Amino acid sequence: MAQKPSIPKGTRDFSPLEMAKRNYIFNTIREVYALYGFQQIETPAMENLSTLMGKYGEEGDKLLFKIQNSGDYFKELTDEELLSRNAAKLASKFCEKGLRYDLTVPFARYVVLHREELSLPFKRYQIQPVWRADRPQKGRYREFYQCDADVVGSDSLLNEVELMQIVDTVFSRFGVRVCIKINNRKILTGIAELIGQADKIVDITVAIDKLDKIGIDGVNAELAEDGIPAEAIEQLQPIINLTGSNNEKLETMRKVLAQSETGLKGIEETEFILNTLANLNLTNQVELDLTLARGLNYYTGAIFEVKALDVEIGSITGGGRYDNLTGIFGMPGLSGVGISFGADRIFDVLNQLDLYPSEAVNTTQVLFVNFGEAEAQYSLPVIASLRKAGIRSELYPDSTKMKKQMSYANAKQIPFVVIIGETEMQEGKLTVKNMVSGEQTSATTDELIKMIAG
Amino acid sequence: MAQKPSIPKGTRDFSPLEMAKRNYIFNTIREVYALYGFQQIETPAMENLSTLMGKYGEEGDKLLFKIQNSGDYFKELTDEELLSRNAAKLASKFCEKGLRYDLTVPFARYVVLHREELSLPFKRYQIQPVWRADRPQKGRYREFYQCDADVVGSDSLLNEVELMQIVDTVFSRFGVRVCIKINNRKILTGIAELIGQADKIVDITVAIDKLDKIGIDGVNAELAEDGIPAEAIEQLQPIINLTGSNNEKLETMRKVLAQSETGLKGIEETEFILNTLANLNLTNQVELDLTLARGLNYYTGAIFEVKALDVEIGSITGGGRYDNLTGIFGMPGLSGVGISFGADRIFDVLNQLDLYPSEAVNTTQVLFVNFGEAEAQYSLPVIASLRKAGIRSELYPDSTKMKKQMSYANAKQIPFVVIIGETEMQEGKLTVKNMVSGEQTSATTDELIKMIAG
Repeated sequence: MAQKPSIPKGTRDFSPLEMAKRNYIFNTIREVYALYGFQQIETPAMENLSTLMGKYGEEGDKLLFKIQNSGDYFKELTDEELLSRNAAKLASKFCEKGLRYDLTVPFARYVVLHREELSLPFKRYQIQPVWRADRPQKGRYREFYQCDADVVGSDSLLNEVELMQIVDTVFSRFGVRVCIKINNRKILTGIAELIGQADKIVDITVAIDKLDKIGIDGVNAELAEDGIPAEAIEQLQPIINLTGSNNEKLETMRKVLAQSETGLKGIEETEFILNTLANLNLTNQVELDLTLARGLNYYTGAIFEVKALDVEIGSITGGGRYDNLTGIFGMPGLSGVGISFGADRIFDVLNQLDLYPSEAVNTTQVLFVNFGEAEAQYSLPVIASLRKAGIRSELYPDSTKMKKQMSYANAKQIPFVVIIGETEMQEGKLTVKNMVSGEQTSATTDELIKMIAG
Repeated sequence: MAQKPSIPKGTRDFSPLEMAKRNYIFNTIREVYALYGFQQIETPAMENLSTLMGKYGEEGDKLLFKIQNSGDYFKELTDEELLSRNAAKLASKFCEKGLRYDLTVPFARYVVLHREELSLPFKRYQIQPVWRADRPQKGRYREFYQCDADVVGSDSLLNEVELMQIVDTVFSRFGVRVCIKINNRKILTGIAELIGQADKIVDITVAIDKLDKIGIDGVNAELAEDGIPAEAIEQLQPIINLTGSNNEKLETMRKVLAQSETGLKGIEETEFILNTLANLNLTNQVELDLTLARGLNYYTGAIFEVKALDVEIGSITGGGRYDNLTGIFGMPGLSGVGISFGADRIFDVLNQLDLYPSEAVNTTQVLFVNFGEAEAQYSLPVIASLRKAGIRSELYPDSTKMKKQMSYANAKQIPFVVIIGETEMQEGKLTVKNMVSGEQTSATTDELIKMIAG
């Protein structure tokens, strides 16, 4: 019992400073989502396993954290089943609930369960932790937050436009320069159709993505290794060498994909999104990137990804259009489009670029030193006035050594310390010490409030 | 698969309106905690079962949600153990993690794990969900939020004073009239000593609490039924009949407990807290209530409880002083004092009294009707200006029937709708409809911003 406790691997405690930074990130995202008319929902941490199983592939099923049934969880098992020791198969008998694995499946479940109350299109955002029994490693946790916004029940591409505006606004507010990359699943389908290699589309995008590193010959060699026939590689040349502005790229692709109805539809959609955004003066660049192939097993239209320009790190936001979000729960025909901000990576980016505004991480603004009972009693109404003025203030609760109280102020990075001793009580003035400059001044309560609240 | 999905019993989804109300509650509490110098932390949803087991009594152990080990959870079990089907005993072999049951044990674990980084006294707050496998019933959930603030590492009663100020400030901000009840475990110990019935203290407080309902004879009869000897009941008479102001009560108790050192210490502590608060002009009444006996198995000093005056509901906030918070994790000698706001009950109280400020529950402020592509493209830069001015605005994404768009605005309770048709585009003006009054006016973008932002 007395051994030092630990926490489960892959999980984290968040200290006051980390929480202040995380709250700054979440609040910024939350505010921007609200500015665009998105509304927050929350779903339970636990979902029925029947809701979760089979939605994330076989691998995902294994990575679900399952919750043991309460009471006699052996009840439903025969001796033979028990002795078979088939962990994967028996999990569903021991457990009927699991922790949510992402926010998308619970959202789909929410839409179906509450369909009568919802007025479509439904623009919801959700900021909650998810859990995955992944092997923990640097930057990968078993508990982490997702910050998703989705619109369901509208096919309009204006939703895509709006989501890109949100991305631009959020990163502008953070002061992080980003490149917003967009692609379209239909263009990729068109390419696959063109060369008759539908199952190779991921290999193709991976190879093309290496152009800068390994050159055109390298890319062609890799495509050949992937089993793409020479003729198809030939047809891919204009796509591999695609350069120029977004419009130039679209023009080239329109020619290349002239025979593919789906491909042309993807180009048209992308053109609409890019042209509409061009009139809206975004702060960050939006770039058509045909090598963007995330989430190909569920995205059906636009695909987005955001890269930080000044930090070496993977994608910090992503998303796309998916059809039939709620089909798995028996409610077909609802199209959706969404984005998800990667809070943990954004946290790292803001740390590396030192972009946290000081107001965001400040806690207590004034500490009152405690010299004893009379001084403390004298201080309390003064502190109450400060708090009434919205100033975060505290009295050191014990009348211990001055040194200890000052190091408490330093540890908490409190910018002002107020000293009230006998002289101050007699004169009705406070001594205020600026902890940054070291300067000491004498002030009334009102003067102190003005000094701090400005 | 196609059957309508459900959520685990005892858990809840929160709709946009519920979330807005809950955020109002959490943000108010959060702001006041910060105003008093408390800092937020978060701990993982999962803790090691070794951290949780044995901390909440035998019943609590059963109510922990346990998470099944990943991989081959049969590995550590012999055939005999399996066939014994001893669910309670084998749970710890199948599972090494559980969901947190409250915020206090994880906080104690946090303090011990991070003791090197912490500067004591540590004033932390924590607002997170907890999980209990209780039988769900009205008002009792298997997942619910706790909103705790605690100070550890300081014995000063000024902490108790500060927590009462926090309670007073929070409920003043909510506009809820409350009675803050305080008691002290040491007074109760004194009473038990006085009558030689230490193990009967809970029975005694329960009986005394019924004075209003069953009268003095009823109380005495119940005490006799509880096995309290006639002589002890005689000694309890001044306590049962205790009336008057807090000071009068304290005077009476000082005489009754004259022989109990512990009892007198409890009176002295309570007197200090009440007298100090008396100088601080609280909005709500603080009342000494000797029948307050919550958490007697862990509180060692002050005990608090808050009752709403205008709604019939149980305690909406509680707390107290406990010694040796971290002793269970091998770090003895740290005293703490804390409070916990009951968010679910406060939610019900604010609903019943209709106290949610309209700004707190408002979402989108302006909806732009969508008449077609040209109108939509015209609207987008206008909407961007509104958002830049901080006005939550959205464009209906599809150019469907006006009626559908208006009912979307109504469902979302959007107060203003902007109509941009051909006339408006030609004249460079917008038509603004006030959805409450039904009034329509013509305005420029700047005029619209002024109209809404004020």
